[in-house]
Amino acid sequence: MSNERTIIKTKVGIVGGGPAGLMLSHMLGQAGIENIVVEARDHQSISNTHRAGILEAQAVSMLVDSGVDGRVLSEGDVHSGIDLRFNGESHPLDFTDLVDATVTLYAQNEVFIDLAAARARDGGDVRYLCEVTELMDLETDTPKFRFTNAEDEAFEVHCDILIGADGSRSFCRRQIPDTNRQDFTVTYPFAWFGILTEAPKSAPELIYANSPHGFALISQRSETVQRMYFQCHPGENVHDWSEDRIWTELQARVDGPDNFTLKTGKIFDKTVLKFRSFVREPLSHGRLFLIGDAGHTVPPTGAKGLNLAFADVKVLFEALDSYYSTSNDALLHAYSDTALKRVWKAQNFSYWMTSMLHTPVDADPFMAKRALGELETVTSSRYGQQYLAESYTGWPHA
Amino acid sequence: MSNERTIIKTKVGIVGGGPAGLMLSHMLGQAGIENIVVEARDHQSISNTHRAGILEAQAVSMLVDSGVDGRVLSEGDVHSGIDLRFNGESHPLDFTDLVDATVTLYAQNEVFIDLAAARARDGGDVRYLCEVTELMDLETDTPKFRFTNAEDEAFEVHCDILIGADGSRSFCRRQIPDTNRQDFTVTYPFAWFGILTEAPKSAPELIYANSPHGFALISQRSETVQRMYFQCHPGENVHDWSEDRIWTELQARVDGPDNFTLKTGKIFDKTVLKFRSFVREPLSHGRLFLIGDAGHTVPPTGAKGLNLAFADVKVLFEALDSYYSTSNDALLHAYSDTALKRVWKAQNFSYWMTSMLHTPVDADPFMAKRALGELETVTSSRYGQQYLAESYTGWPHA
Repeated sequence: MSNERTIIKTKVGIVGGGPAGLMLSHMLGQAGIENIVVEARDHQSISNTHRAGILEAQAVSMLVDSGVDGRVLSEGDVHSGIDLRFNGESHPLDFTDLVDATVTLYAQNEVFIDLAAARARDGGDVRYLCEVTELMDLETDTPKFRFTNAEDEAFEVHCDILIGADGSRSFCRRQIPDTNRQDFTVTYPFAWFGILTEAPKSAPELIYANSPHGFALISQRSETVQRMYFQCHPGENVHDWSEDRIWTELQARVDGPDNFTLKTGKIFDKTVLKFRSFVREPLSHGRLFLIGDAGHTVPPTGAKGLNLAFADVKVLFEALDSYYSTSNDALLHAYSDTALKRVWKAQNFSYWMTSMLHTPVDADPFMAKRALGELETVTSSRYGQQYLAESYTGWPHA
Repeated sequence: MSNERTIIKTKVGIVGGGPAGLMLSHMLGQAGIENIVVEARDHQSISNTHRAGILEAQAVSMLVDSGVDGRVLSEGDVHSGIDLRFNGESHPLDFTDLVDATVTLYAQNEVFIDLAAARARDGGDVRYLCEVTELMDLETDTPKFRFTNAEDEAFEVHCDILIGADGSRSFCRRQIPDTNRQDFTVTYPFAWFGILTEAPKSAPELIYANSPHGFALISQRSETVQRMYFQCHPGENVHDWSEDRIWTELQARVDGPDNFTLKTGKIFDKTVLKFRSFVREPLSHGRLFLIGDAGHTVPPTGAKGLNLAFADVKVLFEALDSYYSTSNDALLHAYSDTALKRVWKAQNFSYWMTSMLHTPVDADPFMAKRALGELETVTSSRYGQQYLAESYTGWPHA
């Protein structure tokens, strides 16, 4: 490694090339605001890592309206509801009827593929396999960061604004000094055991099931491949689970007098998905701004992760656009407070869905009954259904 | 004490002469079904023990439609909403606009006074200062119980149906054998410090306040007497609290940029009100049926206690009326399941309101922020407001 270090000057330096970082980069590019994206992984591995995705209509609009690609429209699957299943009974919520809204099933890695393609098409500067090693001068007008690429060449980016879009284990977040900041965390006594299976759809739309055996989520990926999850111990080992054992466990969680039966098939992927609730406050420090998982993570119940990241992007893009067109940084200063308002609503929703649908192994029996009382209250009331449907399909962007 | 024991034969024997027991006795009396009520306290002391009351419209209808008295209409105060106050801001919910419903502020001891008067007027057999000492033959067609009156005379009641309406520390409940039953309990790390004060109203309707200092409830009793509460440690001693200290604490919990100020006055009653969530399942054993607090208690947040007791009474009255007119006991057998469905909805609502509005001293900082996110979600959404308003004003009776 030589001591040479290439200086790159740009307006906005974005650390992290997942959907949040690329979406912001793309929108800035469309507005003529020069930026660079530096991502640690390579394009191919991100593309191939399946991550489920439920997009709010607003997230779909952000992709389509900004000219990313129409693939989310042609290949995404519009879902107009979910099924809340408990006491062995099905309770469908029809979002179109309830709140005149839908969501779109479109995997997060497909969103990444589309955004990466749009950036390449538009000449965006996105560098993969680059490791960020240092952030500097965050409290000045010229924040900087250093990175090395796969060939071990060293770079230093000088910019006006630095964005931490580097996910839940964010390097950027950890560079913020301990003073005047607070982390909020909840850990859960359970995880999700996720499978991919070569099977037809068991149901046209997502089933969220509360059962005496624990939570299960029956979701879809395509006509021939399905994604399902069941609540498990966080220390569960996938090798202890044969196909038979998995199907028995999943079926037990959707059993009921209606004899609903899962359509089974070869299981070709098994993962234990751990999760937590996390918020960093504030979401900015000097000229560093955190977006998406770098600033906050939600449990997957309710599918708010990517949607919340896109909501951050929208707030921050508008602040940056205003800053570069008027030199007024009021919206940038307001970014953290503005974004956090939605973050806490989404945190509450995700916590609510999680606690209403899961049953910890050592659950207080009162709490398990209370959750069923809540599901009964929500599903037996049109207002309750609308309240849940509005949150699930997404509150209007700020 | 002699060994003589007077035998009383009747159809329904009711242990407990609070609002639940008297309401059932009154409705049975109106339907020509003979019954007796046996109550441990004396009429005067129950009448004089102030207990706040928010009646659902359905509870008001039960009183008025059954011919108890119109006093709840002439003296009760119709409230068409509440104020949810958090982050120092007021968020009024207008129940009439949201769900076309109201509630009535009418103290529980006034309900008792009216019911006791109606029973006396109609020649109902209600005996005060009588201690129930034994329940017998619960699993037969002729359950019995023994009591002694203030003169130490002994009685034994032979009936078809025995009702446990004897409150949260129910003697009847404790006579049920341990097999095939389950108790569900939540204890809370806080209580309510309640005061009565000679002051004008600080607000026309109830204010439920979430503040960094903890929960407060600003309620009313009349034009000149007000009832207020603030969350406190369950071990708090009222003698440690001067008037000044109480007003400072209450005001701190409603402070805000709008400079909302409590109207103060002489404090003439101070109490620490402990509470818990509790459900017994099932609510019946043989020919013994539990109603109201004897079967379940809720925390006071959300004011569901008396309303839930009246809902039990309605379900059980219809079951008894059916039994005596057709000899079919199907509804009696269904009583526990039918009543428990609403009980768990009300338990959930009361738990929800409690956890959303209170801040435990040792609160997880995430949970305090989450509660504010939930209040924001509910109050910023018409659906959220409607969902809460519908629960508060009462789901339709079964």
